[in-house]
Amino acid sequence: MLRVALLGAGRIGQVHARSIAANGDSRLIAVADAVPEAAQKLAADFGAEVRSIDEILVDDGIDAVLIATSTDTHSDLIERATAAGKAVLCEKPVDLSLDRALTALRNVATTGRPVMIGFNRRFDPQFAALKAAFDRGEIGKGELLSITSFDPAPPPVSYIRVSGGLFRDMMIHDFDMACWIFGGAPSRVTAAGSSIVDPAIGEAGDVDTAVVTLQWDDGRICVIKNSRRAGYGYDQRIELLGSKGLLSARNVLENTVEKITAEGASAAKPVYFFLERYMRAYEIEWTAFIDALRSGARMPVTLGEGVAALACAEAATRSAATGATVAVTPDMLGA
Amino acid sequence: MLRVALLGAGRIGQVHARSIAANGDSRLIAVADAVPEAAQKLAADFGAEVRSIDEILVDDGIDAVLIATSTDTHSDLIERATAAGKAVLCEKPVDLSLDRALTALRNVATTGRPVMIGFNRRFDPQFAALKAAFDRGEIGKGELLSITSFDPAPPPVSYIRVSGGLFRDMMIHDFDMACWIFGGAPSRVTAAGSSIVDPAIGEAGDVDTAVVTLQWDDGRICVIKNSRRAGYGYDQRIELLGSKGLLSARNVLENTVEKITAEGASAAKPVYFFLERYMRAYEIEWTAFIDALRSGARMPVTLGEGVAALACAEAATRSAATGATVAVTPDMLGA
Amino acid sequence: MLRVALLGAGRIGQVHARSIAANGDSRLIAVADAVPEAAQKLAADFGAEVRSIDEILVDDGIDAVLIATSTDTHSDLIERATAAGKAVLCEKPVDLSLDRALTALRNVATTGRPVMIGFNRRFDPQFAALKAAFDRGEIGKGELLSITSFDPAPPPVSYIRVSGGLFRDMMIHDFDMACWIFGGAPSRVTAAGSSIVDPAIGEAGDVDTAVVTLQWDDGRICVIKNSRRAGYGYDQRIELLGSKGLLSARNVLENTVEKITAEGASAAKPVYFFLERYMRAYEIEWTAFIDALRSGARMPVTLGEGVAALACAEAATRSAATGATVAVTPDMLGA
Amino acid sequence: MLRVALLGAGRIGQVHARSIAANGDSRLIAVADAVPEAAQKLAADFGAEVRSIDEILVDDGIDAVLIATSTDTHSDLIERATAAGKAVLCEKPVDLSLDRALTALRNVATTGRPVMIGFNRRFDPQFAALKAAFDRGEIGKGELLSITSFDPAPPPVSYIRVSGGLFRDMMIHDFDMACWIFGGAPSRVTAAGSSIVDPAIGEAGDVDTAVVTLQWDDGRICVIKNSRRAGYGYDQRIELLGSKGLLSARNVLENTVEKITAEGASAAKPVYFFLERYMRAYEIEWTAFIDALRSGARMPVTLGEGVAALACAEAATRSAATGATVAVTPDMLGA
Repeated sequence: MLRVALLGAGRIGQVHARSIAANGDSRLIAVADAVPEAAQKLAADFGAEVRSIDEILVDDGIDAVLIATSTDTHSDLIERATAAGKAVLCEKPVDLSLDRALTALRNVATTGRPVMIGFNRRFDPQFAALKAAFDRGEIGKGELLSITSFDPAPPPVSYIRVSGGLFRDMMIHDFDMACWIFGGAPSRVTAAGSSIVDPAIGEAGDVDTAVVTLQWDDGRICVIKNSRRAGYGYDQRIELLGSKGLLSARNVLENTVEKITAEGASAAKPVYFFLERYMRAYEIEWTAFIDALRSGARMPVTLGEGVAALACAEAATRSAATGATVAVTPDMLGA
Repeated sequence: MLRVALLGAGRIGQVHARSIAANGDSRLIAVADAVPEAAQKLAADFGAEVRSIDEILVDDGIDAVLIATSTDTHSDLIERATAAGKAVLCEKPVDLSLDRALTALRNVATTGRPVMIGFNRRFDPQFAALKAAFDRGEIGKGELLSITSFDPAPPPVSYIRVSGGLFRDMMIHDFDMACWIFGGAPSRVTAAGSSIVDPAIGEAGDVDTAVVTLQWDDGRICVIKNSRRAGYGYDQRIELLGSKGLLSARNVLENTVEKITAEGASAAKPVYFFLERYMRAYEIEWTAFIDALRSGARMPVTLGEGVAALACAEAATRSAATGATVAVTPDMLGA
Repeated sequence: MLRVALLGAGRIGQVHARSIAANGDSRLIAVADAVPEAAQKLAADFGAEVRSIDEILVDDGIDAVLIATSTDTHSDLIERATAAGKAVLCEKPVDLSLDRALTALRNVATTGRPVMIGFNRRFDPQFAALKAAFDRGEIGKGELLSITSFDPAPPPVSYIRVSGGLFRDMMIHDFDMACWIFGGAPSRVTAAGSSIVDPAIGEAGDVDTAVVTLQWDDGRICVIKNSRRAGYGYDQRIELLGSKGLLSARNVLENTVEKITAEGASAAKPVYFFLERYMRAYEIEWTAFIDALRSGARMPVTLGEGVAALACAEAATRSAATGATVAVTPDMLGA
Repeated sequence: MLRVALLGAGRIGQVHARSIAANGDSRLIAVADAVPEAAQKLAADFGAEVRSIDEILVDDGIDAVLIATSTDTHSDLIERATAAGKAVLCEKPVDLSLDRALTALRNVATTGRPVMIGFNRRFDPQFAALKAAFDRGEIGKGELLSITSFDPAPPPVSYIRVSGGLFRDMMIHDFDMACWIFGGAPSRVTAAGSSIVDPAIGEAGDVDTAVVTLQWDDGRICVIKNSRRAGYGYDQRIELLGSKGLLSARNVLENTVEKITAEGASAAKPVYFFLERYMRAYEIEWTAFIDALRSGARMPVTLGEGVAALACAEAATRSAATGATVAVTPDMLGA
């Protein structure tokens, strides 16, 4: 039985609390949050205690820490928790600063403690099925990967300002998908972006619509499309062209009902946003974490992989600003 | 908080136990089963006690009884539980004997206690969405309803022998769907069946493949197709032609991944069987039961509706034997 | 070069004229029609001559006659043309009277001339692909066949009155599909019909909505659904459940464009009616006719098969009137 | 009746000859080809005469010239034909040299004769339906356009060497689609390409897999994906994200048959290559040309639009070589 403390009792913390409680092999022991009421509420719902982070880290009865606090605290907490001997599952991204994340990577290495980054999409049954079919060789060698990832509506500009920008905040997921499917980081990144959805996002220094091209030295290419607004919901699709065929993971729809009338045929939309689409992925993610801990296997998403996604975001941010292709160098990956 | 006892700790009892436990408004208090180990195991998993049916029925601390025992006990237990003042949710079918079910219907009426029959498919999100769109008038008046319901593989012949036959055991669900969608029982039933899947099923006096036509006096028609073997999984679809268009509820697939190679395009199969397809429906069914209890609303599936489905099964059984159309008379519906 | 005369210059005659002209191995020589202007127009369009039927039948320069006149003339013309030594392609149905068709069958047999009945749907690329996959054994043995065939809108009641009724006029196509796919006529037919689309159709003695079940002695079952009004266009689908899987031929849509907005997803309707859906089938049908003539192979649709479809229609008409299952006896098939 | 001469009797010339002949408003009068047998054969098939280009251009009985010769002759022939007073429909691309095409554009302007470039995809019913829905405002303002265009198999390297490269030879179609849908040329082009399909293509100085990003000054973005090898056939899809939703034009499949067995679900592939997919588009293209000629309307695809697509190809070729974004300047568009 894995004894777990949860740092952060916000929306995503609640999702994780449910997964921890629902899993027969883990138990939620303690909850910490800067907002006492939030910690209180969540602890009560799941039969856990409210404690401070300091208390949690010195408690030998806590085996693992799930970090779901704000992004600017991730690196610090990962370092402190591993130094205290805890296993860690930390929400994405590792950090907004690539340099800071690289420091954390080095520091964690000295502790030898396992750290997993919460790239939930790897555990989505659709994307996992695509990856498994590809790894079985069903379409031969991978050549051209396409990732479509549109949000239903843009966040408030106040959030945009502290988000680190679309590439670090939103496309970070897609960079991880690309590196995961192709088994490693690209060597070159080219980005184009605009703020055609909302000019205020542009005034805040960010883009809301972007296309990024990743290139590997052996000729493989990945193109990622992001928009902060799809209107119809959450559009999450992947297509992979291989030497022998194409694999596609399509959206999950609200239901399977179709209608045809004189006006045309109609069907349900994709499910609205990430909680609807990825609820099952969060549960599987948690199971994968505790399974790896128990078996001693490599973490399903390593801290180094979290850094690689951030390196892509860093390169994309620079490329979008200049129009030039930017190299992803070994030092950006902590190598 | 609704205090619940579960009669029957088999496969379907376990599904219900999970729904009862997961719902914040109900608690599983007691479990009874003829096999003590089964009761023990389930009670332990959900923090309930093992008790005899007699103990449960006299306990004023039990508000509701969920009957998930073998079909031949349903009528008796419904009568005893309602006589003891309990609310009841009973698995389908009400009984294998229409006469016995009609007696139960009369006896329950004298108690005034609410009884719901567990026709889970009404709560499937796909079929519920179809029904809702139809009730909103999106395709006008209903004219021709088609229900496809194929199991992945036939049960053992030993089960077939005690099942009451395909019409009472399997198509009973589809009869209920037809009556539910069209808002009442048909007036005529015509059935054709054969044992082309497995001759041993024919030797046991049953059919494994059947087509049944239901007719209403105003000209509406429903056709139901059943097969005990689809090979590819559980095929559960409904199509409704109305005066202005067509509504279809398609299968739920294992995932959304598609592949195209020189050999052709391929995609996932439907989910394998009823537990995969209807798990969510069982949860919603339980919520609908306790919501109706609390609000005092009409049960979402009444005992009378359970009898109506059985009356259709009775008529279909007779029609398949003779080739003639059989009337569903008011006395068969307890009217 | 096959030299062809066309009897009947109406809508379907024009379709055939185009196929004859477009095929490099046939030439349209003569056209006959009771309406001189229609014959004149069509002859001019395709560089043919207007002649009387008598002139055509005595002309040794005519190899084949395509009969596209009104149904009540089919049997007579088939008999006269074969007696005159012509090969014949005759539009469906053979006749409205089964007895008359059986007489024609016997009379044609004495001439030894080839006669093909124009069941165009056998040549539809969708249904032909389904049939080919089934014949290759891709789903094992056929068990349960479902045919959906809805027209976009009912014809005028004046047409209904002389049509021979839905079973002979509309479902005749589906009877042929069933016999073709399953390789022979059924032994029993059960029909249910109503006039829910238009009561005036009922007053004219016909039905507009019908479900017919066909049974073979080895346990195979086919269910056919017809409606005179689908609202959204021409709905033409076939599903075949076999011992190892399911084959489905879906509708042909107007285009492949899909739209998703906040209101939902939408797509194109099926193409509107038989000319849009089956234009390609008519071309392939004609090619199949002349290919069979040249090679001396069996006609792709024999006169006997045209009679079998009519026998099913006859049985369905009787069954719908009585509610009883009606046998298709050998004498009804001309055996 | 438009009297037409066809220059070039190769594969695509034959396609056009059929369209000219099938259209009631045009007649094929003369055919010219450097290979006398090819000209002879095609002329015989369609009842035309073989003539030299010189003879054709001086013949006042010829109204229009369809140029389907090799690309290196296009500019010359366009100039000569318009100088001789003919209307011109010329196959894509205008030229491999942007400078030469710009000269032709200027020279043609002095003649005042209409010239149409044969970008057949604009007339594909799928893409035309997408464009029409977009122009009706069904998804609001266009923001992010995605074009997928994969060939079934790469051409021989000998062809690659003289093709002008993937961007001028293959992606030229997609550049035109982008400019057509968005109503004008982009201002910046960024390209990434590799020869992962066949290293010999790389050795010949070309790429076989490419992703190109087009940017407009108002923030609109288009991404084009090309591969010389899809394995499964011809993959031709377009997706357009607008402010209110998404439009997608999907592939045209060989048939609508689906199969489900224990091994999974399968369906037909896309039709194999451009002749299968775009045969109907070629017919509509020809009709659009003669309709515009007769009405005096603007050509459906102007020579200037043909130059714009070539300017995009030129910019993409340069960008792929350097990794830098390349501007599409007004002088590149002949402005």
